[in-house]
Amino acid sequence: MAKKSSSEKLYKQAQKVLAGGVSRNTVYHEPFPDYANVASGCYITDIEGTARIDFANNMAALIHGHSFPPVIDAVIEQLKKGTAYTLASEIEVAYAKHLIKRVESFERIRFVNSGTEAVMAMIKASRAFTGRSKIAKAEGTYHGTYDFAEVSQTANPTNWGDINHPASVLLAHGTPKSVSRDVIIFPYNDVERTLSILDRHADEIACVIIDPVPHRVGLMRGTNEFIEAVYAWTRKNDALLVFDEVITFRVNYGGTQEDYKVKPDLTSLGKIIGGGFPVGAVAGRADVMKVFDPHEKNLLLPHSGTFSANPITMTAGYKAMQYFDKKAVTKLNALTQKAISQIREAIQLAGVPVSVTGAGSMFRMHFKATPPTTYREAYLSKEAGALVKELLDYMYYEEKILMINTFSCMLSTVMTQKEIDRLTEGLFRAFKAFKPRIEKLNNS
Amino acid sequence: MAKKSSSEKLYKQAQKVLAGGVSRNTVYHEPFPDYANVASGCYITDIEGTARIDFANNMAALIHGHSFPPVIDAVIEQLKKGTAYTLASEIEVAYAKHLIKRVESFERIRFVNSGTEAVMAMIKASRAFTGRSKIAKAEGTYHGTYDFAEVSQTANPTNWGDINHPASVLLAHGTPKSVSRDVIIFPYNDVERTLSILDRHADEIACVIIDPVPHRVGLMRGTNEFIEAVYAWTRKNDALLVFDEVITFRVNYGGTQEDYKVKPDLTSLGKIIGGGFPVGAVAGRADVMKVFDPHEKNLLLPHSGTFSANPITMTAGYKAMQYFDKKAVTKLNALTQKAISQIREAIQLAGVPVSVTGAGSMFRMHFKATPPTTYREAYLSKEAGALVKELLDYMYYEEKILMINTFSCMLSTVMTQKEIDRLTEGLFRAFKAFKPRIEKLNNS
Ligand SMILES: Cc1ncc(COP(=O)(O)O)c(C=O)c1O
Ligand SMILES: Cc1ncc(COP(=O)(O)O)c(C=O)c1O
Repeated sequence: MAKKSSSEKLYKQAQKVLAGGVSRNTVYHEPFPDYANVASGCYITDIEGTARIDFANNMAALIHGHSFPPVIDAVIEQLKKGTAYTLASEIEVAYAKHLIKRVESFERIRFVNSGTEAVMAMIKASRAFTGRSKIAKAEGTYHGTYDFAEVSQTANPTNWGDINHPASVLLAHGTPKSVSRDVIIFPYNDVERTLSILDRHADEIACVIIDPVPHRVGLMRGTNEFIEAVYAWTRKNDALLVFDEVITFRVNYGGTQEDYKVKPDLTSLGKIIGGGFPVGAVAGRADVMKVFDPHEKNLLLPHSGTFSANPITMTAGYKAMQYFDKKAVTKLNALTQKAISQIREAIQLAGVPVSVTGAGSMFRMHFKATPPTTYREAYLSKEAGALVKELLDYMYYEEKILMINTFSCMLSTVMTQKEIDRLTEGLFRAFKAFKPRIEKLNNS
Repeated sequence: MAKKSSSEKLYKQAQKVLAGGVSRNTVYHEPFPDYANVASGCYITDIEGTARIDFANNMAALIHGHSFPPVIDAVIEQLKKGTAYTLASEIEVAYAKHLIKRVESFERIRFVNSGTEAVMAMIKASRAFTGRSKIAKAEGTYHGTYDFAEVSQTANPTNWGDINHPASVLLAHGTPKSVSRDVIIFPYNDVERTLSILDRHADEIACVIIDPVPHRVGLMRGTNEFIEAVYAWTRKNDALLVFDEVITFRVNYGGTQEDYKVKPDLTSLGKIIGGGFPVGAVAGRADVMKVFDPHEKNLLLPHSGTFSANPITMTAGYKAMQYFDKKAVTKLNALTQKAISQIREAIQLAGVPVSVTGAGSMFRMHFKATPPTTYREAYLSKEAGALVKELLDYMYYEEKILMINTFSCMLSTVMTQKEIDRLTEGLFRAFKAFKPRIEKLNNS
C-alpha cells in the first residue's frame, strides 16, 4: 500500500540506532513508520509532503492540536528565562492553583514528567498512606510502564483464567513473581465479581485504581453503580479509591470524575495537562498527599524528579488548560457527539455491524453490532486485530486520516465540521470496502 | 538569615496547593524555597531580584547553563512545527546516531522522559534479557524513584546492618517487602565484599547497577579494580553490568565509561542529554536492546511512552550535545580542575579539615581532612548535616552562589575564571567563618 519513500529510507537508518527502529512502540508500523515533518492545528504533514487530519493527537495528549499559538507564544517567552532550575518557580504555583480550583477532589497536587511517573507516584502514595502494599486494578487497563501498574494489561484467553478470579498476568519477561501477588485483578464494571474479589484481600489493599473510561478495555464508561460500589467498598475497608485520568481528564472541565457522585481520593494526570510537553501529576486529598511533604519528621514517601514542574511544561500546560475552559469543553464535546451521530448514520447506510463507545471528546469503534461491555468481550481475535490494522492503513493512506491504533479518535478544539465530514465520509467508504470482512468476523 | 520576601509570600500560597509547597523535594528549603524569575548563562535571578552564580545547574542537568542560544534558537524553530506527534520524527534518528557514534558501548538506544524512567527501563530490560528477576546495587546510590532502584538509597547506621551483608532497606513506607528480597546491596568500591555478596546470589542476578561516580555515596570514582572485578563477575555468571550515567555522562565526551577498559552492557542516561528538557534514555548492546523491539514475535518487554523522543527534547538535546564536543569537554574539565586546586589552596589557607572528591566537571566537598572512600564513611551525622545546611545558606545568601545540597558543584561550559574566583573566595570566607564548627565536627 505504501510506496518506496523517504520514510522507508530513514527507517533503515533508524533500525541501526534505535531498538526496533523506534523510541515508542506506538509509532511502530509495518512495513515502516511514517516520519512527521510539520504539524499545525489538526493537520500533520509527513516528510513525503502528505498532509493528514490528526485524530490521534499524540495519543490523546494534545487538546488544542499542534502548535497552538497561545501555547507557543507563552513558551517562547519562558524559553528566554530558562527551561529548568534548581529553584521553585511562580508558574508551578499558579498552575497548581488553577488545577485545584478546577476539580473538587483536588486539594494538593504534585507534578512529575509522564503518566507513568504519575501512576507510580499515586500507587506509592497510596501504599505510604495506608501502610499496605497491595493494589487492585482492572483486567486490560493500561496505566503506563510501572510493573505493578502493568499487570494483566494484555491478558489473553490463554492466560486470563476464570472470570470469577482473573489471573494476575505479568507483562514483561523477568518481572519478579511477587509483583503478581501484589496486584489483585478484577473485571471492570462487574460489581458483584469485583466486590467478591476485593473482599478476599480486604485487609491488604492500599488502593483500587479505576480508569473511568478505560481506553484498552473498550472505551466505555465506568457505570455509576460500579464506581459507587467500589467507593463504598474502599470506605468500609480503609482503602483508597484512586482514578487514572491521564487520558480521561479531557472528558469534562473537571475530568470524568465530575460525572460521579463519589470522588476519588487521588487522581493521576498526564497528557493534555502538559500543553504538548512531557508531564504527569498526582492530585487529591491533602491528608494523603502529606506523604510527599518534606516538612514531615517521618517522611513516608521521599520523592523528587529533575524535570518535575519545569517552567516550560508548567507554562504550556497552564495556557492549554486556560483555553480549555468550560465553553471550549462543551463545544468540543458537542462536535464529538455530532461526529458520533454522523458515524452511526454511516454505519447504518453501509449496513455494517459496527458500534461506537466513548465519552467526552473520545470515541472508539468496534467491529460488532453491539458494543462490548467488558475487556474480554472487547478483546480482539487475531483476525479482528488484522482487520483493524488494514482499516487503519486504509484510513491513513487512502483517506489521509490518522487515528489511534485501537480504531479510536481523540478530538482537538481546533477541529471543525469540515474535518468531521471528512472523517465520516472516509469511514463510510471504509465500511463499504471492508463490509464482507466485517460481516465475516461477526459470523465467525 | 533570609528576610521577609515575595518568595515567602508565594510559598504560603504554594503550601495550599502543592504537597509540602513544592513539586520536588530538591527545591525545598527552610524556612521557604526561593523562586526563580529568570536565568541566563550561569546566573540565576530570583523574584526578589538577587542574581546568583548557578553551580547547581538544575541538579547537574544543564551543561551549557541556562537559555543557551543555540538550543533556544533550534527549539523555537521546532516549536512552530509541533512539539509531539503520534508519528516518528527525523530528529530522533539523527540524535540517536550522534549518541551511538559518541560511545563505544552504545549499539542501540531508546529514549524516555526522565532518569527515573531510564533506570526503570534498564532494569526491566536486564530482567527480560536474562529471565532473572533480582538486581544488585550499591548502598547509598541514588537511581531515581523506581522502588527497586531506591533500595538502601538512604540506609543509615540504625538499619544498614553488617557491612559484610548490608541490609536491603526499603525507602518508601508501604513498599512491598518482596522488593527488598529482589534487590541485593553491596558496598561500593569494596571488591572482596561485593564479590562475596554477589556470589551468594549468582544464579539470580539479572544485572549489577553501577554509577561510576555516585554522587550521594561521596562523588568518588569507581576504581578500575572494582569495575573490572564486577565486570568479570557478570561475565562468569551470565549477568549484565549496567551503568547509571544519568549524572556522570558529562565526565567525558563518551561518559565516565570511557575511562574503563571494560564496558557496560547497558547504560541509563538523562539530565544533560535533554538540553534542558525532560529526558532519559537507555542504550547498549544490540542483542540486549532487542527486548524492546516490537518486530519480535515474542516481545519480551512491551514499552511505550506518550512523550518519549518528542521532537523538542530531541532538538534541544542534540544541539546541546553537539556543542559539548571534545574540545568543550576538555575545556570544561580543565576549568573544573582549576577550581578544585584553588579550593584546595583556600582550604590550606583557612586551615580547615576539608577535602574534595569528584570527576570531570563535578566535585563535592567533605568536612573531613581525608576524603571518604565509602558510603558509610561519607554518611553525614546529624551535626554534619546541620553544618552543611548552614554552609549552603551562607554561600547562597551571603556569597550569592547556588550549589547542590550535598555541597557539590556541577559546572557549565559558559562559566569562566571570574565565576571560579567568586566561588573560591566565597568558600574561603565560609571556611574561615565556620572553622571552629568544622574542626569541632572532626574531633567529635
Ligand atoms: C490511562 C493511562 N495511564 C497512564 C499512561 C501513561 O502515560 P505516559 O505514556 O505519559 O507514561 C497512559 C498513556 O497512554 C494512559 O493512557
Ligand atoms: C544517578 C541518577 N540516576 C537517576 C536519576 C533520576 O533522574 P530523574 O530525576 O530525571 O528521574 C538521578 C537524578 O538525580 C541520578 O542522579
